[in-house]
Amino acid sequence: MLTLDKIYHAAYVLQNVIRRTDLISAPKINPESNIYLKPENLQLTGSFKIRGSYYKISQLSDAEKAKGVVACSAGNHAQGVALGATKNNIKSIICLPDCAPISKVEATRNYGAEICMVEGVYDDAYQQALRLKEEMGYTFIHPFDDEAVIAGQGTIGLELINQLKELDAVIVPVGGGGLISGVAYAIKTLNPNIKIYGVQSSGAPSMYNSLQHGRIERLSDVSTIADGISVKEPGVNTFDICRQYVDDIVTVTDDEVSSAILTLIEQHKLIAEGAGAVSVAAAMFNKVPIKGKNVICLVSGGNIDVNILDRVIKRGLLTSGRSCMLTVELIDKPGQLLNISRIIAEKGGNVIGVHHERANATMAVNGCFLRINMETRNFEQIEEIKKALLDAGFHICE
Amino acid sequence: MLTLDKIYHAAYVLQNVIRRTDLISAPKINPESNIYLKPENLQLTGSFKIRGSYYKISQLSDAEKAKGVVACSAGNHAQGVALGATKNNIKSIICLPDCAPISKVEATRNYGAEICMVEGVYDDAYQQALRLKEEMGYTFIHPFDDEAVIAGQGTIGLELINQLKELDAVIVPVGGGGLISGVAYAIKTLNPNIKIYGVQSSGAPSMYNSLQHGRIERLSDVSTIADGISVKEPGVNTFDICRQYVDDIVTVTDDEVSSAILTLIEQHKLIAEGAGAVSVAAAMFNKVPIKGKNVICLVSGGNIDVNILDRVIKRGLLTSGRSCMLTVELIDKPGQLLNISRIIAEKGGNVIGVHHERANATMAVNGCFLRINMETRNFEQIEEIKKALLDAGFHICE
Repeated sequence: MLTLDKIYHAAYVLQNVIRRTDLISAPKINPESNIYLKPENLQLTGSFKIRGSYYKISQLSDAEKAKGVVACSAGNHAQGVALGATKNNIKSIICLPDCAPISKVEATRNYGAEICMVEGVYDDAYQQALRLKEEMGYTFIHPFDDEAVIAGQGTIGLELINQLKELDAVIVPVGGGGLISGVAYAIKTLNPNIKIYGVQSSGAPSMYNSLQHGRIERLSDVSTIADGISVKEPGVNTFDICRQYVDDIVTVTDDEVSSAILTLIEQHKLIAEGAGAVSVAAAMFNKVPIKGKNVICLVSGGNIDVNILDRVIKRGLLTSGRSCMLTVELIDKPGQLLNISRIIAEKGGNVIGVHHERANATMAVNGCFLRINMETRNFEQIEEIKKALLDAGFHICE
Repeated sequence: MLTLDKIYHAAYVLQNVIRRTDLISAPKINPESNIYLKPENLQLTGSFKIRGSYYKISQLSDAEKAKGVVACSAGNHAQGVALGATKNNIKSIICLPDCAPISKVEATRNYGAEICMVEGVYDDAYQQALRLKEEMGYTFIHPFDDEAVIAGQGTIGLELINQLKELDAVIVPVGGGGLISGVAYAIKTLNPNIKIYGVQSSGAPSMYNSLQHGRIERLSDVSTIADGISVKEPGVNTFDICRQYVDDIVTVTDDEVSSAILTLIEQHKLIAEGAGAVSVAAAMFNKVPIKGKNVICLVSGGNIDVNILDRVIKRGLLTSGRSCMLTVELIDKPGQLLNISRIIAEKGGNVIGVHHERANATMAVNGCFLRINMETRNFEQIEEIKKALLDAGFHICE
């Protein structure tokens, strides 16, 4: 049974272990509300997970500590358990599917874990972790459905209530529900007037569906860039706590999450992972009733793969008019590229890629396509460039 | 004459205006030192500049305040002056060259400045600012060579000395020298044993050269991705203070700066601009003698253009084996792309671009090049893919 006592105890145990992350005022996220960010992406290991895993491990018996712990995760939980175990001077084994990104494997190893690579996918790694638990007597550290883990995450709730006077609402990312369970329990127990909103990805709405239907449901399939909250089924404990203490759960799309990631980069110089940015996305796109309220968006983590980050930025550049792909149909004769280049340069565009394509069944034999990739300042400039090309007699496709 | 009094006074004036940015432990930046980051990229306006400009503006006479201020900058200084003026309830005019990135223009306008777009480059905008000063009686706010501005930046020095016990050294980005002058003066006056190291870009080493030669020198040309410290000539005041209080100035290359930016993203979830990351680059690449020392790297700002960020990340992905461009020479017959795709997929590579190129004078008439752009996990995986392609009889170019 979770109690406020346990969360306060977790806060006491964690006080010299974790960072007490600052609030950051973020007025531009939603101009109609007074928004603050709680940047747990700046927490040790790049996410809040260290709170729960450290506290859980610290509460094991001496006999359990002597044997060590095992966990299964390719993400934040792995790093949290690894560092939590190392800081408690005990052994940790993390089972990872062999398709896990090498950067996360290395980060986990660097926090002191022994890595057990398992052929297959997440479920195979999970089975291997359970086998190791049975065979070796390691304690299995569940990523969310564990009272001590939830108590550890709940320390964020205690911090929030101290960090912002007249707090009206907190927006929290939801995967399995460990984070929101701890935060909601802590805050609602101290002040039931503060609203707690959860956010899931529309590609993995397991807690959302389960709460809607009043029973735990398992998704057959999940797909989202917010891999940290891509969970097929909520926990038994977390489902019960959410049902009792969470005011509402909403969902956001991957496009909304991408926008939120880019906004955090541009406005706040913070890298959030998809799961970490869903709370900001919910505030940006008015998914929750926060008009005129003092609101904290919990940015739960920042462990985003750089390849994904690259794609998010590219998409953001395109959708904000700062990069542009033009296809110009032209007669294949000397000097064409020169003319086009001159027009683009005169209008201040910066060409970063050109692709010449001949021989298309739909066009004249001596025709060709020129695909131009360029950096631009805004949509206005793109329109100016297009107009200048049209005025010069070029035909722009698409 | 700068005094510690003035810096303490600036700290008093700024206490409810700015964020007192936290230190962040950064053990992986240089494993032989005990490194902390001072993330002034998380400061209001995304850089430390608000400290100096707010304090300067707050110290104007009522008559000066009634007229307003003018400044010239396309970067952090513009945003600092704009917000500093708005928070002091006075008018600000910022002269910008019309080639300035639209995102910076908009940010400056959003902080409440009146924008004066000037045709031409920085020097044209600067001349216009001086004209406005003469004609309209505005006070010109210098970006660095001003005692009150320097005192404002010096408040960082006071914070550092309180935030880290047994501080041995501070590494500070240097452009015109306003930041390092304030920080060095504050720290050296309180504790002369703490080392102060400055870092410039090797593409804009104006203070570095001037200190080497013992007199102010002007660079004819500057070129660096660290545009925030791309300054042709140090100030008179800042040169004098640096000569007296700075232990050494070193330079870093754009490649080193790119690595530092990527490291801050991956390890610390922080976006730094080039100028903000030079201090981290100096620590990473052992440009300063900090072995075994407690060191603070001042990350001065995070206002990086997203286009530049995109390039830095791309370069980082290539140089760390997480993306790869392969050119395969093949005989142009059906099924070739299928075979290559299958081999790459089997080895876990993720193809994100394919470019088919025929007709090259150096090859057989029925030959062609296939350029494949793919996401990879590491160099080992790239080698595996290459080997599998070679084993299947394909010829890889380059």
